[in-house]
Amino acid sequence: MNHGFASLVQGGSCEPFHWEARPLGSQEVRIHITHCGICHSDIHLIDNDWAISQYPLVPGHEAVGVIEEVGSQVDSSRLGQRVGVGWQSQSCGICPQCRRGHEHYCAQSEATCVHRHGGFARDLVVHQRFAIKIPDEIASAEAGPLFCGGITVYTPFKAHRIQANQTVGILGLGGLGHLALQFANAFGCQTYAFSTSESKREEALRYGAVDLVGYGSSTFQKLAGHFDFLISTVSADLDWSQILKLLAPEGTLILVGASPKPLNIQASMLINGARKVAGSVIGNPMDISEMLAFCARSGVRPQIEVLPFAQVNQALDKVRQNQARYRMVLGWDVT
Amino acid sequence: MNHGFASLVQGGSCEPFHWEARPLGSQEVRIHITHCGICHSDIHLIDNDWAISQYPLVPGHEAVGVIEEVGSQVDSSRLGQRVGVGWQSQSCGICPQCRRGHEHYCAQSEATCVHRHGGFARDLVVHQRFAIKIPDEIASAEAGPLFCGGITVYTPFKAHRIQANQTVGILGLGGLGHLALQFANAFGCQTYAFSTSESKREEALRYGAVDLVGYGSSTFQKLAGHFDFLISTVSADLDWSQILKLLAPEGTLILVGASPKPLNIQASMLINGARKVAGSVIGNPMDISEMLAFCARSGVRPQIEVLPFAQVNQALDKVRQNQARYRMVLGWDVT
Repeated sequence: MNHGFASLVQGGSCEPFHWEARPLGSQEVRIHITHCGICHSDIHLIDNDWAISQYPLVPGHEAVGVIEEVGSQVDSSRLGQRVGVGWQSQSCGICPQCRRGHEHYCAQSEATCVHRHGGFARDLVVHQRFAIKIPDEIASAEAGPLFCGGITVYTPFKAHRIQANQTVGILGLGGLGHLALQFANAFGCQTYAFSTSESKREEALRYGAVDLVGYGSSTFQKLAGHFDFLISTVSADLDWSQILKLLAPEGTLILVGASPKPLNIQASMLINGARKVAGSVIGNPMDISEMLAFCARSGVRPQIEVLPFAQVNQALDKVRQNQARYRMVLGWDVT
Repeated sequence: MNHGFASLVQGGSCEPFHWEARPLGSQEVRIHITHCGICHSDIHLIDNDWAISQYPLVPGHEAVGVIEEVGSQVDSSRLGQRVGVGWQSQSCGICPQCRRGHEHYCAQSEATCVHRHGGFARDLVVHQRFAIKIPDEIASAEAGPLFCGGITVYTPFKAHRIQANQTVGILGLGGLGHLALQFANAFGCQTYAFSTSESKREEALRYGAVDLVGYGSSTFQKLAGHFDFLISTVSADLDWSQILKLLAPEGTLILVGASPKPLNIQASMLINGARKVAGSVIGNPMDISEMLAFCARSGVRPQIEVLPFAQVNQALDKVRQNQARYRMVLGWDVT
């Protein structure tokens, strides 16, 4: 038997829950979970915002633990290895995307807590490719949020080849944004934090921002044409036409947060100055591995608050109320 | 005195017009015009669609001719050189964009027929940097449309590093589209033409398309996820959400035509699959020069209909009525 915490109905609190342990496939590993980060996507799943949830629903897709059992085709040297699992737990392995190493674009991709029980659990079974080794330099509690939040904001830097000689703006200073700021700083960029919370200024500067600015007219005047890249972690509707004017010619607005309304952008705003709007979504397992190594040596770490799993609902409430600074992590052996 | 054809009032026909010849600056050249292509932008200017027109307005920004006079600081070897001038006639030369060779992004950029008399004229004076030598292989009448229409659809291939192993869709088969199709073919891509005119199928295939498809549900089903790049030359509103689904993961929709309404794209459409929407606009003088050399050796040429300048209004009417196949060119010594 496996056990953990499940939301039994749409929008419900997480309750202690037991279920039949999943049998181990030949390519799978069973991970004894020690920690699991909480991502906004867990809340969306609990609330069935995307109409894909099944209940009882065990959330959690920033899971960290130790491999306690390996399938018949997994090298036994992985037993005892400290690993993490992010949004993705399986892909088909044979489609063009998988064969290019782009497993995260696989149409058959399986998410860790969609139609299967996720990381708010004692154990987790995944394909060995998606159980990714954590470097020794990164503590288990801190590793969790890197597996979804971290890779989400690391990928833009890699995919768009963002360089130290460039100017980057990070929109939103939450779970994703505070990691994006650190990556921008670690990549050596001149970095601005965009936030409506002036109270976050000190932290923004500590994470390497040269300034924290709001979304008012003074920002749009002062910083017009200033940015090579803007990375939006915001899930609210912004005035995208104004924001595009902040981009230098050939600059790119990268969206990792989804605003609810259509973007409402005029084509001419993109044509003049050859500007771009790009989406970006997590990363493949090798990217996660590479990101972990980069975090290990560059010092990028989530700022976390760790609570015992028994306090899962308090932790979820803090996320719902935007009180997490900046990522809540649940732990089994935490008091 | 210089002479040519001017629209005297908003939306007016082009009438014979004389004006004081512009004195030649030290860095300028005077070009004796032989041909000038007609671009949709000329119509927009005549109609003052962009609220920047001044009348009398001498349109024309696909001008080709021979240098007949050079300023004091221009090498006299350029006398007699066959050159063309596109949308841009001058830039400040000292801003960061100019100093990067990105003159087309210069905030002080001067357009050939905005607030100055353009190429529907006997003579044209421009800064020597914007009078670009035409390779011998390209006839003057055919060179004209390359200077605006050509560079507009060449730049996406260069800027986005589009390669022969990729699949490209060209949306719209008009003045821009028929050149974009040829460039896609010359770059070796697998190319599809998108058009509502089934009657253009034969020409599309002749220009290298493997198929001509419409914007109906059969296309969206059959070609979902198929394209690395889509280049839209269309200035009408399309169902952009459907069109984005045609892109492969990490694929890019490049807009060179401006639809009137906002694009109405959901952020999630870009985030899932890390897709992009990019604008693109003309190119700098060195890009134009490079494009001309590429056209010379690859055989890319506009399909043109040449009329004498005296028939300028008939030519404009054909453009207005979408009857140009595919670019109208005016010539002084044409009968």
